[in-house]
Amino acid sequence: MGVVHKYGGSSVATAAHIRAVAARVAKAYQQGEQVAVVASAMGKSTDALIALAREMGGADTPREMDALMATGEQQTVSLLALALQSLGVPAMSFTGAQCGMRTNSNHTRAKIVEIRAQAVEECIRSGKVPVVAGFQGVSQDGSITTLGRGGSDTTAVALAAALGWDCQIYTDVDSIFTADPRKCPGAKPLHRVTYEEMMEMASLGAGVLETRSVELAKKYGVKLYLGRSLEEDLRKGTYIMEWNETFEDMPVTGLSIKENCAMFTMGGLSADGKDVSRIFQLVAELDINVDMISQQTLPEGVLASFSCSAADAKLLLDKMETVGFSHRPIHQGTLTKLSLVGVGMRTHGGIAAAAFSALSGAGIPYYQVTTSEISISLTVDAKNQEKAIACLADTFSLREGSLEKEDKTQSPGPGQA
Amino acid sequence: MGVVHKYGGSSVATAAHIRAVAARVAKAYQQGEQVAVVASAMGKSTDALIALAREMGGADTPREMDALMATGEQQTVSLLALALQSLGVPAMSFTGAQCGMRTNSNHTRAKIVEIRAQAVEECIRSGKVPVVAGFQGVSQDGSITTLGRGGSDTTAVALAAALGWDCQIYTDVDSIFTADPRKCPGAKPLHRVTYEEMMEMASLGAGVLETRSVELAKKYGVKLYLGRSLEEDLRKGTYIMEWNETFEDMPVTGLSIKENCAMFTMGGLSADGKDVSRIFQLVAELDINVDMISQQTLPEGVLASFSCSAADAKLLLDKMETVGFSHRPIHQGTLTKLSLVGVGMRTHGGIAAAAFSALSGAGIPYYQVTTSEISISLTVDAKNQEKAIACLADTFSLREGSLEKEDKTQSPGPGQA
Repeated sequence: MGVVHKYGGSSVATAAHIRAVAARVAKAYQQGEQVAVVASAMGKSTDALIALAREMGGADTPREMDALMATGEQQTVSLLALALQSLGVPAMSFTGAQCGMRTNSNHTRAKIVEIRAQAVEECIRSGKVPVVAGFQGVSQDGSITTLGRGGSDTTAVALAAALGWDCQIYTDVDSIFTADPRKCPGAKPLHRVTYEEMMEMASLGAGVLETRSVELAKKYGVKLYLGRSLEEDLRKGTYIMEWNETFEDMPVTGLSIKENCAMFTMGGLSADGKDVSRIFQLVAELDINVDMISQQTLPEGVLASFSCSAADAKLLLDKMETVGFSHRPIHQGTLTKLSLVGVGMRTHGGIAAAAFSALSGAGIPYYQVTTSEISISLTVDAKNQEKAIACLADTFSLREGSLEKEDKTQSPGPGQA
Repeated sequence: MGVVHKYGGSSVATAAHIRAVAARVAKAYQQGEQVAVVASAMGKSTDALIALAREMGGADTPREMDALMATGEQQTVSLLALALQSLGVPAMSFTGAQCGMRTNSNHTRAKIVEIRAQAVEECIRSGKVPVVAGFQGVSQDGSITTLGRGGSDTTAVALAAALGWDCQIYTDVDSIFTADPRKCPGAKPLHRVTYEEMMEMASLGAGVLETRSVELAKKYGVKLYLGRSLEEDLRKGTYIMEWNETFEDMPVTGLSIKENCAMFTMGGLSADGKDVSRIFQLVAELDINVDMISQQTLPEGVLASFSCSAADAKLLLDKMETVGFSHRPIHQGTLTKLSLVGVGMRTHGGIAAAAFSALSGAGIPYYQVTTSEISISLTVDAKNQEKAIACLADTFSLREGSLEKEDKTQSPGPGQA
């Protein structure tokens, strides 16, 4: 079975970078590994194209922007193919259209509907290394499309799925960590996480891998690896796969941190739901992305609360002002949302208890609590962020040197959230 | 009937240039003209790509070079489409593949085998302006190909042929001239020339339009116009078309000038042709491009002579040395080849007589004379070039203020050389 290597923009930023990537791929090839490569546009080349487009007078039709952007990856793959050939590796470049990456017509954020990989398979059969342009595809009417944010990862996973291969995503971090090392000093590298945990963390803002590509990998059972470009020791990166017995018995795998959240809480709302629906109408009109929502019905009326970004909160407050909404919300300053993630979390009882007692023990007030299948989220005041992160990280031994706490949860079940 | 506008690299060199071209096209569109656009890569962008490719370690596989080069035109057309849309003109970009430009697999100098213009026709039917990437196509196996030198002109003419439209080639000269104005001061603009004359002049080194695109235009009866970018007065440029009665009654239309020619003349060669074939074997081995050839059989043996570039002459002389070829050629220093071209030249008698007498009258020795259907070529010593050009230009009134000579030739027949 072969491997799809994916190299992002920073890994192919210059001619020298491209030659280095070629050397890395050549080595794998010469060791007898079957390999295909997916590459992004060179470093900041996309920005240059966007700048040029801006000079065209204001029009930014998605179809034309896609046709323009796609040239970035097209240049990388033909250059990379040349670099590989210079090293004696037979290589062949493919645009999104050439590798049969069929998408819908949703330009600038198209979805892959089908891969007709015959040409790539033929290339592989003939002993060559296909070098595929990431981030792009072709729509039904033959227009060039792009896949939007994280698109090259999606291309790589989709190609691996079509070929039945593994997928190694090379980027500029060593691995996935239990928490963002910049916000949680001493955060530990995670060498294996389940698809669900990765998705949960991505959607909770870990931001290394787009949820979409992880979903795709889970759907087609593509074994994902994430590691630093040119690092050949695969023990240093992170494997993303189905849960199995070899996984450590950890109730909590990671801690996601989302800063600048705002919380609205409004009491005494009409029991008929009219007030609540009115509030969410305003939210919708402002196109505000609402995160946590909770609602309780009390004798004195409905108590609703939800969170959103601090910026959106400002918008909403002004809007409520102008439409003269009767109920004044308790608008809670700036908060940080902390989410504990882990497939071990079959029931949240133990984890919740441990988290709450740890925080209150440390004198840290926490607010709104919500849960998903494999996560528990809560918010703390921004000023307590650092303290709270350290407290939770230690409680669930997510950082180096933190004392192992007794596992209060049941043992993990199969990672099928 | 619509018009295909073609804009070369210098016409789209910068964002400002592209906007200017867009304004030009928009004006035609808003005046109700049906228009399609073919554009080249921005100015020197192709050179930049070649430089990048050079850094890849030496490989320069034609397929990958083509895929790389094609991005240049792809960027121009999407940018131009955006610029047009900004001016309220519905426009749509097409790569060579998207506009159905099917070629053979002869990468870097592919030949068009078929145009499947349905997508472009559909675009036109829907009232949009197609903006097509010049210079590129797609081969049977789906690889991106490029058409080689003058490729964008060929794209424009081929597209016009497929649509049954006229073709206007916008470049950085005002028109075709009776002779190269840099070498023949006062050369007159030609406002109408026949396809044959244009081909003859192109192949004789006028170098404004590639012979290939003119041939294509003749074959499909595409009315060609050549003029300066953004010049809207079409009386200033040159129309290239079939001869018709409205053409002026000029025996000679133009004078082509080809510098740095060398002439070989060898006498006393074996009558059995062995010597001659041996000579041309050497020429073939050296891949020398031979121009004029003539051979006479005299009592004392065969006299053969031919011309080639001065550089190739050096090669050939050395080769003859090494293989010890018995006959020493009379190698005539550096010459300039002058060719008088005109469909009026049904018979060459009158023209030849006029040319010879003019030159000898001016004391200018001339050598080898050859003729094609519509041209007479001869060579003069480089040192006499200027004098000879002036002499012939005046004899056939090819420059401003030159006295009109009495037409010694029969009146021109239909331009079906």
